[in-house]
Amino acid sequence: MHELDYFFYPKSIAVIGGSERPGTIGRALMENLLKGKYKGKVYPVNIKGGTVFGLKVYKSIREIDDEIDLAIFAIPAKVIPQVMEECGSKGVKAALIISAGFSETGEEGRRLEAKVVEIARRYGIRIIGPNCLGIYNAENGLDTIFNPSDRQDKPKMGSIAFLSQSGALGAAILDWAAMEDIGMSKFISYGNAADVDESDLIEYLGQDEKTKVIALYIEGAKNGRKFLEACSKVSKLKPIVALKAGKTERGVMAVSSHTGSLAGSYQIYSAVFKQTGVIKAESLRELFAKAKALALQKPAKGRSIAIVTNGGGAGVLATDASESMGLKLATLSKDTVEKLREKLPQMASTRNPVDILGDAPASRYKHAIEIVLEDPSVHGLIVIMLFQSPALDAEEMVEVFKRISKKSEKPIIGCAPGGRYAEKYAREIEATTGVPVYKTPLEAVYAMHALVERGELLGK
Amino acid sequence: MHELDYFFYPKSIAVIGGSERPGTIGRALMENLLKGKYKGKVYPVNIKGGTVFGLKVYKSIREIDDEIDLAIFAIPAKVIPQVMEECGSKGVKAALIISAGFSETGEEGRRLEAKVVEIARRYGIRIIGPNCLGIYNAENGLDTIFNPSDRQDKPKMGSIAFLSQSGALGAAILDWAAMEDIGMSKFISYGNAADVDESDLIEYLGQDEKTKVIALYIEGAKNGRKFLEACSKVSKLKPIVALKAGKTERGVMAVSSHTGSLAGSYQIYSAVFKQTGVIKAESLRELFAKAKALALQKPAKGRSIAIVTNGGGAGVLATDASESMGLKLATLSKDTVEKLREKLPQMASTRNPVDILGDAPASRYKHAIEIVLEDPSVHGLIVIMLFQSPALDAEEMVEVFKRISKKSEKPIIGCAPGGRYAEKYAREIEATTGVPVYKTPLEAVYAMHALVERGELLGK
Repeated sequence: MHELDYFFYPKSIAVIGGSERPGTIGRALMENLLKGKYKGKVYPVNIKGGTVFGLKVYKSIREIDDEIDLAIFAIPAKVIPQVMEECGSKGVKAALIISAGFSETGEEGRRLEAKVVEIARRYGIRIIGPNCLGIYNAENGLDTIFNPSDRQDKPKMGSIAFLSQSGALGAAILDWAAMEDIGMSKFISYGNAADVDESDLIEYLGQDEKTKVIALYIEGAKNGRKFLEACSKVSKLKPIVALKAGKTERGVMAVSSHTGSLAGSYQIYSAVFKQTGVIKAESLRELFAKAKALALQKPAKGRSIAIVTNGGGAGVLATDASESMGLKLATLSKDTVEKLREKLPQMASTRNPVDILGDAPASRYKHAIEIVLEDPSVHGLIVIMLFQSPALDAEEMVEVFKRISKKSEKPIIGCAPGGRYAEKYAREIEATTGVPVYKTPLEAVYAMHALVERGELLGK
Repeated sequence: MHELDYFFYPKSIAVIGGSERPGTIGRALMENLLKGKYKGKVYPVNIKGGTVFGLKVYKSIREIDDEIDLAIFAIPAKVIPQVMEECGSKGVKAALIISAGFSETGEEGRRLEAKVVEIARRYGIRIIGPNCLGIYNAENGLDTIFNPSDRQDKPKMGSIAFLSQSGALGAAILDWAAMEDIGMSKFISYGNAADVDESDLIEYLGQDEKTKVIALYIEGAKNGRKFLEACSKVSKLKPIVALKAGKTERGVMAVSSHTGSLAGSYQIYSAVFKQTGVIKAESLRELFAKAKALALQKPAKGRSIAIVTNGGGAGVLATDASESMGLKLATLSKDTVEKLREKLPQMASTRNPVDILGDAPASRYKHAIEIVLEDPSVHGLIVIMLFQSPALDAEEMVEVFKRISKKSEKPIIGCAPGGRYAEKYAREIEATTGVPVYKTPLEAVYAMHALVERGELLGK
């Protein structure tokens, strides 16, 4: 068992500050743990005693007649050293400190944080936090994200792990992922990283079987050398995608007001990402697009891509985005062009992008996709579908993708611009065939670019 | 009355090829015109005769005992010259040709197109099309976008006019706008632009009282000089935002396969946009973001912006995006900082971005926004709201925006990353207060950038 497993798979949890009082974090934590699918034992600890949701409240963690894997702290910062001592003598394995009021507040807070870490280390307790939202483990329902459930959705189980230095942004990302039906394995808002830092978590997620991709929002690494080593080691095992905030001079200033991190030069981070094989994203949408593609599709074995579309304009936009990012539109072989000519109407374009025209039914997509994927010069395929067309049966397109995605050794990315209907079938194709489908040509190309970068790293 | 008004406000329409046969464009057109809110007269014309949805079918347009403002063509290309002659002798004012099979197909099609235009000009008939989806006028329900209504939504009435050289992409954009609750005044897919071209439409929309912003997807202008003059004239009256496809070498090749336009160098278009005051967008999301902001908010009187946020991370991302695009984060005056200190908790950041912390209620937003807007060095404000927070009452935020947006002379842009709840209140703030609210910091900054560019143009 990995020592960080106690954070994600605890058999028993003590909620320090557990409460029934409306509006408190202690109550939100108790509700999340008791009403969700988490099956371990939950013990509220509160000096006030009494009961919480029918459970006996312990005045001290030492009174609990059971082993405690994880203690979650939702009490004022200044009393945490004393309670950490009690946790130590109780044999607690892991401490998640939600509470703020530590190094992010200045010198006094820094001293308090150091003291808490010193106590924990003495007892071999690992700490995540303080000043964080904590953990969401979709696998077992362990959930410390205490926002009200009518304002904050959580994503389904999936294979993307998400690490966020910012708690509030992390919560918004969870909420967004739920709406977009993007699955996550584990989410961690790690706050001040007083003990366990982003590098430890990257290493941990590197060996986590439930995680296929690690996505990261970072302002500044706790320890540059350690971060470089963790990224270098783990990116050989699975893809890491990172959005580094603090890119401009004013952005760096804003970071220092926010997490107090030394943001470091963006150039240095870019160089580190390149050197260690971390895939860079420059916006939230790019981060989402790339993480989803890496979770669902295989890497591309080259930079040469093809586009099949029933709309010329969307094909041009995807072409522009591809070439602007350094991907190449494959020059299709004479053989491919001839086969396309046989199967497509005369007005179709057999040059890449392959424009199969606005009246294309699903069967025409099938032919074009199969022919293009056979061309050895094509390393990956973007399929653009304007589902508004009366000719295109979306259910049949799902079948086409089912058939093709199973046998293709090349990555396939979908793109379905539009509204409710397009969105519905985008999600259905994704869920049933593993082909990720994006709303815009730009995002589809971001996705393909990540698969190309990943392929290049693995090819080295 | 403007001669193009016959396309958008016809009192009577003849549908050439009007039919009841399932799967035909003629049927879809009849359904859209009869079942929607369009109140003018509709006459089906079809050599087969009989009735269509209970209406008498005329074998020739000349048999109709009424004046016809607009003839919509959904019949094979080769018979159109003869029918256009009949339209001429009937005194038809405007012809919308949906049918394909013209200049986009090669030399023979080019000749056919020229012939149709020659006949129309002889009778003073203006043509939109051929090879297009036609018109959607949200004001009177005139709608020739013939995609099935379960696959294709149409936006509500609003003040953005949308011109698209690509029909399929245009349809997807309409569908998307409907889902995002973005209102449109008029939509035109103008196809081959055999007679009325993008420049004529820009001039027309320039004087259209229902249109506040013109958004344009263009691959290549029909007539460069005319385009330059139209943009130059109209952008003085109202903002034009353009997405020019065919940016890269392969993109230009794709354009020539698609619309057959000479895409022209992207550099030349960029220079024309700059010279004529057209605001450039480089992606669909950027186009949407900018058009919406220009429709709802006033221009900014300078490049210096402020950010108020309850999440530090999102504030950093907005700062990076602003500075990367050439906006400046305002340096708040001593007076502003002092006033903020008085109203905000000690841990808040009174530097710009102003971080009012994760526990900020709506009242704290109100104070911060009012104080920051009073600072003369601030020309525009981005308000970031992480609505997942238990402290932030979204209904109260709507009230804050109602109060502030009324009296502010500076533009305000909202940003609410997240899922369903955030999305719901984003739309409500937009609809009730006119503050556009975006999902990501990047899009909020695109929006502000457009308002800054617009302000600079008007300041010249």
